[in-house]
Amino acid sequence: MCSLAEEQGFETFRHAYRAAIKEVRTKIEILSEDFAVRHDYNPIHHMERRLKSPDSIEEKLERYGKEISIASAKENILDIAGIRVVCNFIDDVYAIADMLMEQNDIELVTKKDYIKNPKENGYRSLHLVLSVPVFLLNGCENVPVEVQIRTVAMDFWASLEHQLRYKKGKTLPKKVDCELKACAESSASLDVRMQRLFDEIYKSD
Amino acid sequence: MCSLAEEQGFETFRHAYRAAIKEVRTKIEILSEDFAVRHDYNPIHHMERRLKSPDSIEEKLERYGKEISIASAKENILDIAGIRVVCNFIDDVYAIADMLMEQNDIELVTKKDYIKNPKENGYRSLHLVLSVPVFLLNGCENVPVEVQIRTVAMDFWASLEHQLRYKKGKTLPKKVDCELKACAESSASLDVRMQRLFDEIYKSD
Amino acid sequence: MCSLAEEQGFETFRHAYRAAIKEVRTKIEILSEDFAVRHDYNPIHHMERRLKSPDSIEEKLERYGKEISIASAKENILDIAGIRVVCNFIDDVYAIADMLMEQNDIELVTKKDYIKNPKENGYRSLHLVLSVPVFLLNGCENVPVEVQIRTVAMDFWASLEHQLRYKKGKTLPKKVDCELKACAESSASLDVRMQRLFDEIYKSD
Amino acid sequence: MCSLAEEQGFETFRHAYRAAIKEVRTKIEILSEDFAVRHDYNPIHHMERRLKSPDSIEEKLERYGKEISIASAKENILDIAGIRVVCNFIDDVYAIADMLMEQNDIELVTKKDYIKNPKENGYRSLHLVLSVPVFLLNGCENVPVEVQIRTVAMDFWASLEHQLRYKKGKTLPKKVDCELKACAESSASLDVRMQRLFDEIYKSD
Repeated sequence: MCSLAEEQGFETFRHAYRAAIKEVRTKIEILSEDFAVRHDYNPIHHMERRLKSPDSIEEKLERYGKEISIASAKENILDIAGIRVVCNFIDDVYAIADMLMEQNDIELVTKKDYIKNPKENGYRSLHLVLSVPVFLLNGCENVPVEVQIRTVAMDFWASLEHQLRYKKGKTLPKKVDCELKACAESSASLDVRMQRLFDEIYKSD
Repeated sequence: MCSLAEEQGFETFRHAYRAAIKEVRTKIEILSEDFAVRHDYNPIHHMERRLKSPDSIEEKLERYGKEISIASAKENILDIAGIRVVCNFIDDVYAIADMLMEQNDIELVTKKDYIKNPKENGYRSLHLVLSVPVFLLNGCENVPVEVQIRTVAMDFWASLEHQLRYKKGKTLPKKVDCELKACAESSASLDVRMQRLFDEIYKSD
Repeated sequence: MCSLAEEQGFETFRHAYRAAIKEVRTKIEILSEDFAVRHDYNPIHHMERRLKSPDSIEEKLERYGKEISIASAKENILDIAGIRVVCNFIDDVYAIADMLMEQNDIELVTKKDYIKNPKENGYRSLHLVLSVPVFLLNGCENVPVEVQIRTVAMDFWASLEHQLRYKKGKTLPKKVDCELKACAESSASLDVRMQRLFDEIYKSD
Repeated sequence: MCSLAEEQGFETFRHAYRAAIKEVRTKIEILSEDFAVRHDYNPIHHMERRLKSPDSIEEKLERYGKEISIASAKENILDIAGIRVVCNFIDDVYAIADMLMEQNDIELVTKKDYIKNPKENGYRSLHLVLSVPVFLLNGCENVPVEVQIRTVAMDFWASLEHQLRYKKGKTLPKKVDCELKACAESSASLDVRMQRLFDEIYKSD
C-alpha cells in the first residue's frame, strides 16, 4: 500500500473530496432540472464522477517535487475530486459553466478552455476548478473539485484517445496520431453543424 | 386539475422544493458517511422523500382558511418538501438532528419532539422544519423542508398506523385503537432495550 | 382518460411489459459485465427504457384499423415495451444483438437493420423485437420487447432529429432536411473511422 | 492476496454469482410490483445483496476440510451469492418464498425455516438456496443463490446481534446473551401483534 494511504486521517481526508463531489453534482442536477422545467430541454446528457486513487496522488506529488503527505496533497493537487459533465451541445457547455460560477458559495480557482484552444493532440473540453463548502462532523471545509464540461462528441473522442494511449503507450504511431487528430476535427465541425440545426428549433419561437 | 396547478409558474415553484429536498438529502448523506468513516458505524437505516401533491396543498390552505395561490402556499405551508430519515437507534435520531442544526447555512424554523412527547395515538418521531439555500437559474432562494427523524421501530409502527387509517377511516374501532397504542409502547420500550445493548458495544472502547 | 386505460386489468397488463423491460435489461447488463470481465472493455455506453403510453397505443391501434382493447393491443402492438441500448462502436451493436438472440429462453420475433439500410431521412439503428418469459403472480407469460441498438453517434443524431420534428412538425423545410441527412452521413463515416482506430488497439494483441 | 483470487478464471467465476444475484433480484422486484398492482400493498420493505469475499470462501472451504480451488468452491459453498429480502410482515415472508419456488426455471436446493424453529440465540429468518439459470458469453449456467427472507423486526435484531458479536467476539457475557435473546422474543411477539392488526385492514374487504 502506498505511504499516503497509511497516514492517519487518510479516510476522513478522502471523504471530504467524496462529499465535495456530491455537493457539486447536486448543484448541477438542480440547475439542469430547473433548465428543463423552464425551457423544456435538458442540456446535460450524463455525468460521471472520479476520485483520484492514492497511487495517482502520490505519483503527481512526486512529479511536482512535493512532499508526500496529506497536507501536501491538499495544498498542491487540485483534481483529487473530479466530475465530468457531458452536454448535448457546445452552447450548453458554457451555459452550465456560467451558472455554476455565478453561485455565491462557489469560488472559481482555475479555468482552462480547451474548446477555444484545443490541445495539440485534438483534445477539447472546458476545465474548471471550483472550491465548494462541505459540512462535515467537525465543521465546514472548502474543498476543490475539478469540473470537466464537454459535448457528447468531445467525450466520445476523449475516451477513444484514452483507451489508445492506455493500451499502446504514450507515443502512438505517427499515422494513428494523425488520424486521431483528424477525427477530432471532423467531430468538432459536426458539433458546430448540429448546434446550428438545433438553433433552428428555437429560432422562430 | 386543481387551480393551483394551473397558475403560471407552478412547475418552477414545485422545482424549488424538489431542489431543496436534494440539498438536504445530500447534506445528510455526507454527515452519515463522515460518521461511518470516523466511528465505523452508520447511524442511518434509510431515507425517503416526499413532495406534497397540489391537491394536498390546496386542501391544507382551505383548512387554514388561506388564499389558494402559489404565493400563499409559499408563505403558509411548511411541509411541501419532506424527507424522512430512518435511524437505527434513538440516540442516532438526536445526533443527526444536532449535526444538521449546527450547519451555518441552515436555519431552524420549527422543532417538534414527538419522541419525548408522543402523540395521543402513540405516534413517535422528531420533526424539524429547516430552511435551506437553493441555487436556481434566477438566483438563490431559501426553501423550507420538513425533516422527520425516527427509529426503524417508530417508522414501522407509523406506516402500519397510516395504512389502517387509510383503509378504515379516521376513527378506528376502539379495540384496534387500544391495541395500536399498546404496540407503540412495546415497540418504544424495545427500542430502549436495544439501545442499551448497543451501548454495550462501545462501553469499554 | 383514454378508453384503454379504463378497461379492467389495464394496470396488470402494463405491469407485464414493465417486467419484461426489467428482464431484458438485466440480461443485457449481465452480458455487458461478462464482456468487461473477459475483454477488459465495456461495449455499452448507456441504456434507456420506455413504456408506450395508453394514448400512443390507442393511436397506433386506430392507425392500423384494429379494435381498441387490451387483447387487441397485446396481439397487434409489438413495441409497447422498449429498450434502447447505446453502444460505443458499430461492432458492439451486432455483438450485443447476437449474444441476445443466442439465449434459448428468448425468441426473435422481428429484426430490422437500419444500419445496413438506413431510412430515407438518414436514421440508423438495429431494431429487434424479442419475446421473453416473465414470471408473474399468476404464472409465466411471454412478452414482446422492442430493443433498439445503436452507436453513441447514431443516438445523438436521432435525438436531434426527434426534437426538430417534434418542434417543427412532420415536414421540415427542405434545407433543414438536407443538412440533417448530410449530418447523418458525416456522423456515420466518423463512426467507421473511429471503429478502425479502435481496432488498432487490439490488432497486435 | 488469497490463493483463490490468484487462480485463473477467478473474475469470471465471481461474475457468474454477481449475475445470479441480479437475476433473482429482478425476479423478486417483478413479483413485488405485480403484488402491489393487484393488491395495492407492497410486501417488501427493502433488499440487500452480498457477494462472499474470496477470504471468506477460503476460510469456509478450510473449515469444511475441502480443497481450496474454484471448482471446489462451486461444488461445496452454496452461499457465495446472497440476497436478503426484508418484508413488512411474517405472512409476506412465506408469500415471497412460495412465489419464488413456484417459478419453473428455479430449482430449490435447500430450505431452512429459522422462523418456525429459531436458532438457540434467538435468530429468526427463512433461508432458501435457489439455483437459477444465468446467460453468460459462453452459454447458460445454473448458479446457486442464498435467499434470506425475514421481517423488518427480525432484520433489525439480526443486525444488532451481528454488530455485538463482531465487536465483542464469539462469546458474549452471559447477561448480554440473555437480554439479546429476550429482545428477540419480544420482537417476535410484537411481529405477531402487528400482523394481526394488519389483517384487520383486509378482514372485511
